[in-house]
Amino acid sequence: MSSIRFTIEKKLENGLGRAGVLTTPHGNVETPAFAPVGTLATVKALSPEELWELGAQVVLANTYHLYLQPGDATIAKAGGLGKFMNFHGPTMTDSGGFQVFSLGSAYKRGVTKIAKGDAEEAQGNDEHHTEHTQLMRIDEDGVTFRSHIDGTEHRLTPEKSIAIQENIGADIIFSFDEPTSPRAPRVYMEQALSRTHAWAERSLAAKKRNDQALLGIVQGGRYHDLREHSAQFIAALPFDGFGIGGSYVKDDIVNVVALVNRILPEDKPRHLLGIGEVEDIFEGIEQGIDLFDCVQPTRIARNGTLLTKHGRHDIFNAGNKELFEPPEWDCACYTCTHYTKAYVHHLFRAKEILGHRLATIHTLFFRV
Amino acid sequence: MSSIRFTIEKKLENGLGRAGVLTTPHGNVETPAFAPVGTLATVKALSPEELWELGAQVVLANTYHLYLQPGDATIAKAGGLGKFMNFHGPTMTDSGGFQVFSLGSAYKRGVTKIAKGDAEEAQGNDEHHTEHTQLMRIDEDGVTFRSHIDGTEHRLTPEKSIAIQENIGADIIFSFDEPTSPRAPRVYMEQALSRTHAWAERSLAAKKRNDQALLGIVQGGRYHDLREHSAQFIAALPFDGFGIGGSYVKDDIVNVVALVNRILPEDKPRHLLGIGEVEDIFEGIEQGIDLFDCVQPTRIARNGTLLTKHGRHDIFNAGNKELFEPPEWDCACYTCTHYTKAYVHHLFRAKEILGHRLATIHTLFFRV
Repeated sequence: MSSIRFTIEKKLENGLGRAGVLTTPHGNVETPAFAPVGTLATVKALSPEELWELGAQVVLANTYHLYLQPGDATIAKAGGLGKFMNFHGPTMTDSGGFQVFSLGSAYKRGVTKIAKGDAEEAQGNDEHHTEHTQLMRIDEDGVTFRSHIDGTEHRLTPEKSIAIQENIGADIIFSFDEPTSPRAPRVYMEQALSRTHAWAERSLAAKKRNDQALLGIVQGGRYHDLREHSAQFIAALPFDGFGIGGSYVKDDIVNVVALVNRILPEDKPRHLLGIGEVEDIFEGIEQGIDLFDCVQPTRIARNGTLLTKHGRHDIFNAGNKELFEPPEWDCACYTCTHYTKAYVHHLFRAKEILGHRLATIHTLFFRV
Repeated sequence: MSSIRFTIEKKLENGLGRAGVLTTPHGNVETPAFAPVGTLATVKALSPEELWELGAQVVLANTYHLYLQPGDATIAKAGGLGKFMNFHGPTMTDSGGFQVFSLGSAYKRGVTKIAKGDAEEAQGNDEHHTEHTQLMRIDEDGVTFRSHIDGTEHRLTPEKSIAIQENIGADIIFSFDEPTSPRAPRVYMEQALSRTHAWAERSLAAKKRNDQALLGIVQGGRYHDLREHSAQFIAALPFDGFGIGGSYVKDDIVNVVALVNRILPEDKPRHLLGIGEVEDIFEGIEQGIDLFDCVQPTRIARNGTLLTKHGRHDIFNAGNKELFEPPEWDCACYTCTHYTKAYVHHLFRAKEILGHRLATIHTLFFRV
């Protein structure tokens, strides 16, 4: 029996979109919902009370980062992630896979989850794989990597990822998978996908706690047939819900999501991993996604970019210097109801910490 | 008629100490009180609501910094400092003198307001003065200096300082003065003091707004006879209250303060400028000081040093890693009632912004 319950309350008449309620041991999430990312057990610049006040219902933390710092054993002793960080609502952790594999070619080449235009296939060329070797080595059993903090060697396997996530103790955890670069050749994608599927089964078998829900991850990169195969394989396993991960060609995300969601069982929650552009969220919702997470909104906020109904706004713009009006008219967030563009502009120019907070609050609260 | 009212409610039976209420156009300050410093119209890492909640009654901002960034004209257009920064309580600005003069020898030599042990007199040697010349030039009329931000040349005079402070619009402002390095020779101190006195008269004459209170500043460095002379001179002028500024020999602060306060009129508030070590605050209160300000508590907090009843605590200490107890037992601040040493330790190790906030809240709230 699953530790979460998912109730669909409304459905689009045509299409996959739905609204529902996800019940977890730490409370409900009204879906569709965006989970702010609290990489290191804190959503950068915010307090848990501020998260609640702006309407965040669930926080996603990163297994890779917490494993290295402060260590999952420490968080277990604290009573788990929520107690450690003083966030009393639902929490999630990713599997650590994305960060570990990003230590390889993805970081070095500046590759994100989304390919710019058409991904150029390096046919049959194993360059992608061999480039990993310095920081990360993959085998069928798992992955060996070096910490980005101190260079020490570590190893993640499906069993280890689950054990770490059980120590961290979030309400929702993910199976260990191998995301691939958008530039990976098809032959490599196929190998990675077969590992991801084997690791999904091992993740399920490794799970011991029954107060956590385990979500399986569909991969397959930009190949529709691989996505279909992966969705079928993962859907057949007894997961409590599903994540859709990996790389996309930008304009094709909506197609991949629709394809996968038509295969996944309707009655379980679906999380589109690491996707958080406003347009992608709207399209994902229409295609039946219930949960999203992404560092992008909070990251761009800290760089001074505010999301508004009229597009992105760079708070550094000199034109803001004496604009004594809210960052966004008709916005009910704390920032817009208490401060002016001129003041937030000043805080960013002066490199004042409060600027990060005010921009993050607005950008997470932002609604169209 | 003064824009502030100061009522003494209780006095020490023996000695100068007293408790009172300072009424300003933006509310009351129960004295003795410590004013957190909001250099650039923000107390670093905190929101105005957090300041209220931890018991801060008044904020002091720095004229020099706000003049350069965002500019006092911008703050005037915003409706003044309090409106600009969303702090609705009483505010103060210093005169800009300390920062400008610190651009000279003080910064270069790492000199603070307090000399380490006996100040070594450079008898009749003008080295102190001439070392200023690159960033700062003093004449009888005022001081010319270069911005620490972009090197542009600016000039402050008593009239200019008051005009800037009137633009910034705090409830309490200070006369323009010349603080001196603890290492300045006596002959230089005498010259500086005569400028400070002339500038006090010019500051009074320059003042136009009648909704701000102007406090005159007593200087005189480590020389008791100069302090006595200065206190007599400044006390005789129609100021709304008094600041005691300048440099001290560490163990002699209490004597200087007692000497000056026996001369200053009892019925007006007294502010000990830039002094904020816990011991100095207690001694200052006993000797009749009503108001304090200092960047030190907030600065050390951001560096990970918490003030506690048992002395300073370095939150980076490895021993905190798994200490799941409040940073200080029996402390009622937000930090101590919501977080553990282990978590704050983790935030500082991980360089997370929330750490600065939690440490600052505790250290400003801290009471013995």
